[in-house]
Amino acid sequence: MNLHGIFPPIATPFKNDEIDLDGMKANVAKWMKTGLAGVLVLGSNGEAPMLDADESFRVASAARESVPAGKTLIVGAGEESTRSTIAAVKRAAQAGADVVLVRTPCYFKNQMTTDLFVRHFTAVADASPVPVLPYNVPGLTGVNMAAEALARLSSHPNIPGVKDSSANLTQIADLVAITPPDFTVLVGSAPTLYASLCVGAVGGIVAAACVVPDLIVQLYDLARAGKHADALALQRQITPLAKSVTTSFGVAGLKAAMDLAGYVGGAPRHPLPPATPQMIDTIRGQFAALGVAV
Amino acid sequence: MNLHGIFPPIATPFKNDEIDLDGMKANVAKWMKTGLAGVLVLGSNGEAPMLDADESFRVASAARESVPAGKTLIVGAGEESTRSTIAAVKRAAQAGADVVLVRTPCYFKNQMTTDLFVRHFTAVADASPVPVLPYNVPGLTGVNMAAEALARLSSHPNIPGVKDSSANLTQIADLVAITPPDFTVLVGSAPTLYASLCVGAVGGIVAAACVVPDLIVQLYDLARAGKHADALALQRQITPLAKSVTTSFGVAGLKAAMDLAGYVGGAPRHPLPPATPQMIDTIRGQFAALGVAV
Amino acid sequence: MNLHGIFPPIATPFKNDEIDLDGMKANVAKWMKTGLAGVLVLGSNGEAPMLDADESFRVASAARESVPAGKTLIVGAGEESTRSTIAAVKRAAQAGADVVLVRTPCYFKNQMTTDLFVRHFTAVADASPVPVLPYNVPGLTGVNMAAEALARLSSHPNIPGVKDSSANLTQIADLVAITPPDFTVLVGSAPTLYASLCVGAVGGIVAAACVVPDLIVQLYDLARAGKHADALALQRQITPLAKSVTTSFGVAGLKAAMDLAGYVGGAPRHPLPPATPQMIDTIRGQFAALGVAV
Amino acid sequence: MNLHGIFPPIATPFKNDEIDLDGMKANVAKWMKTGLAGVLVLGSNGEAPMLDADESFRVASAARESVPAGKTLIVGAGEESTRSTIAAVKRAAQAGADVVLVRTPCYFKNQMTTDLFVRHFTAVADASPVPVLPYNVPGLTGVNMAAEALARLSSHPNIPGVKDSSANLTQIADLVAITPPDFTVLVGSAPTLYASLCVGAVGGIVAAACVVPDLIVQLYDLARAGKHADALALQRQITPLAKSVTTSFGVAGLKAAMDLAGYVGGAPRHPLPPATPQMIDTIRGQFAALGVAV
Repeated sequence: MNLHGIFPPIATPFKNDEIDLDGMKANVAKWMKTGLAGVLVLGSNGEAPMLDADESFRVASAARESVPAGKTLIVGAGEESTRSTIAAVKRAAQAGADVVLVRTPCYFKNQMTTDLFVRHFTAVADASPVPVLPYNVPGLTGVNMAAEALARLSSHPNIPGVKDSSANLTQIADLVAITPPDFTVLVGSAPTLYASLCVGAVGGIVAAACVVPDLIVQLYDLARAGKHADALALQRQITPLAKSVTTSFGVAGLKAAMDLAGYVGGAPRHPLPPATPQMIDTIRGQFAALGVAV
Repeated sequence: MNLHGIFPPIATPFKNDEIDLDGMKANVAKWMKTGLAGVLVLGSNGEAPMLDADESFRVASAARESVPAGKTLIVGAGEESTRSTIAAVKRAAQAGADVVLVRTPCYFKNQMTTDLFVRHFTAVADASPVPVLPYNVPGLTGVNMAAEALARLSSHPNIPGVKDSSANLTQIADLVAITPPDFTVLVGSAPTLYASLCVGAVGGIVAAACVVPDLIVQLYDLARAGKHADALALQRQITPLAKSVTTSFGVAGLKAAMDLAGYVGGAPRHPLPPATPQMIDTIRGQFAALGVAV
Repeated sequence: MNLHGIFPPIATPFKNDEIDLDGMKANVAKWMKTGLAGVLVLGSNGEAPMLDADESFRVASAARESVPAGKTLIVGAGEESTRSTIAAVKRAAQAGADVVLVRTPCYFKNQMTTDLFVRHFTAVADASPVPVLPYNVPGLTGVNMAAEALARLSSHPNIPGVKDSSANLTQIADLVAITPPDFTVLVGSAPTLYASLCVGAVGGIVAAACVVPDLIVQLYDLARAGKHADALALQRQITPLAKSVTTSFGVAGLKAAMDLAGYVGGAPRHPLPPATPQMIDTIRGQFAALGVAV
Repeated sequence: MNLHGIFPPIATPFKNDEIDLDGMKANVAKWMKTGLAGVLVLGSNGEAPMLDADESFRVASAARESVPAGKTLIVGAGEESTRSTIAAVKRAAQAGADVVLVRTPCYFKNQMTTDLFVRHFTAVADASPVPVLPYNVPGLTGVNMAAEALARLSSHPNIPGVKDSSANLTQIADLVAITPPDFTVLVGSAPTLYASLCVGAVGGIVAAACVVPDLIVQLYDLARAGKHADALALQRQITPLAKSVTTSFGVAGLKAAMDLAGYVGGAPRHPLPPATPQMIDTIRGQFAALGVAV
């Protein structure tokens, strides 16, 4: 199982408000023809909090059918309680996940200590049939998991790495520095992808990879090959579009960009609003600036 | 249906990690002998995010059996998507809820606008078999629903009021000022209960009411009767304990205080930690300072 | 010396970018004909951080000439170092201050502990020729001074009270509860003035008192007299204007409102922008809604 | 005038609470024998907010005597008003500054817009006898100056660059990308120095350079030479000490580390506390881990 490289956190398309498995499989088939290392389904950009358990199982199962051998299927599976999270990772494994991505609990914010995170992820990893990647995404959860938690978790045989979407380079660098050399640090912020690779991250799960997979893989390859000037130049070109499909316009922006790039996108589930015409124009301009025909 | 007065946001007891419906019903029976106006089940203090849909249904149904006519059963039912929230409020209504309490969506934080809240709660209220109370709890969700949203929602015939746990008195006062006179503003912060009643709130859903229901009802009655000096004096006495059972020690503190006060409490679900001996000592001292034998 | 009641935190007018002492004295003379208990000069709304030491001395001296016996002149005097703050309070006393208002240090934010605040204000109060009011204004300083600091400072013979502009009613109530009965808690947020008086504050230093002094004094008198319904009704009427002259439109809003109300206002110093025509229209409408001819 | 490279933001030593110019000059003389590009006096770590105007002038003048030709003397000079800031930069220039570093205004936080920053820094740069570096330090000021402000300011002939201490690599990368190629982006966070150099920063003003100047210069040289693996390895070694002398232990930590490293350090001015014995032990251990004899 390979966790290095670039993974798109894929969107979940809907048709008449129902999950559109055919649309998703068509998307995955296209992505799997590129240099992407696999896919993440049921992440934040997959609107995981908008799907029920049954839908989640069907999405993961459908993804499994479309991800070939040699590519890695990561399935999101985080819940608030340890018990529910264990149930979710078992369902994900049954659906065919190679690895599960488990976000931090977050609802009871002032209880979220390093000790709690260590206890939670240890119990989940003990029970999970497949390897577990803890997932830190403070912009959405409102809580940060400190590098110290991973220093302790990284010795667990079923925790091979972490995804950190904080875009905090001090923390990314710390994660690499205080975990073993073979511990996999993946990042979740495309605008800081090159900087993160510089400090030792070995890959990324970034929304921009859903819409310009070849360019993100190229950026990764340049950085890994030590072609720093070229990597930085490409990072700069990609950053504006990368912001639109996450921080600026949210899932709606990602899906609109997917529609433009020839994937099945559509609108997010209510109450999330669809992209406005102005957002779509902005995104179209960003594709044009990248020389990507849409 | 009466929404004025004091409601305890009741804890969900567990036995061997399974929901303890007998324990909960015993608790409710005791609370219903007091001047409390009813109960809220499946709120934040009920660890709603730790329960699955089936457990939630059983908890709500059990509460229904224990809440007599003349008292109001409020059931928590918030989810991230409008669709899931509608499903949850229908299940809650089927279980016997008189009213549902629906927290704001919050995961996609930078998308959470007033327009989104209005659209979401309007759709939920349109579909709900029972009245809907929107619930603003920024300390847990990380997002605030501005008073402007309620100004627009308060004309909906199926939205009789709101619960606001921001402890922001400017906002509480604004909510009362810009909604119709018969719109019910309930607050969720015991340390500001008296101040909130001063500015026009007509009740509270506060954790302290789980452990000292008579005192909280007395505070409410004093304030409503215009006995301001007595109400303030009582507020001051109650505040230290009120902090312990929410902000300071979380659900663990609430459950430990319930154990001391003769209710079925226990520990929260993992990964939430149980109360430490030091916390329990603090709480014991606060009961003593209130003259409550425990 | 009386610290109970309502004090306007007066603006500093400028003419050709120089301090306009005549304008200020004319304003003070008008305010001193009302029921205001005195004035605060060189507070945040006085643009204290925009004035140098010499200007500050002249402003305080000019105010002294205009504040009659029986009214209290409070002069702002906070700096970052203890040493500079002591120098500033001595200058303020020399200029005629009855009391000095000393904001918390704030620049080195993560060093600002309760111990530091106690050490700082104790040293300042030891050295000050006049009584010292510590001033907590987290919206501007970015740091909060907890009630615990005042619990310790309130026994100092030269610290008769505190001004708290946090608008946090839990904290205001705590300040009253954990300090001696004769310790003066003044608040700095007009939208929460009535609620603060309910929980035991004995006055306010609020910008709205610069533009509708009679109404703010009336609100204070109603609350003190236990006429709660009338006080709340008046609070509600005042709140929209009160927001404009602080949180919404800043010092520029306050000065524009002063111009409309017949005081010498003008523009703030650069780089603060003047009020826009749209802001002025909003404020004009808020005066009209209050029945105040402008 | 050279702005590329590494500058220490030097501490201001005190003796009996008075500025110790001899101590400072001895420190500067030692620093100037290294590969450092110059020094910054009167920055945050120089306790600029703790000094009055006269002290500041004397500190800058003394530094001028100790900084040889070919090295750059940067003097901090930010105030809240445009007028006061212009006066301060003129004094700094008179004292011999090659360049002035001007922090953003920050007190009236909700007024601090991109337009305000552009207006302020344009007026300051118009009036300044020497080049002006705007300085963004949100961790201390509580406000962030967006890259958009610098995109507009970078065309001013008297604004050759910027110092950004946000440690936000998206923003650092944006600053480089949207300003002209010869615009100088300096960073103020040693733990992200290497990552910042990767994305195009051309130097740093970092506290760690006060205590291990040779190592920071070596890190800079390695990064500039494209020796990425070595640079990253050195960054990792330096990071723990770098945290102690800023974020963790503040100015007190920096001064204690200076004492250990053979510079004149001492304690910060009141109310800032001195380093505790435990902090000093931690720092001593971090020097040892770096192989630096202290």
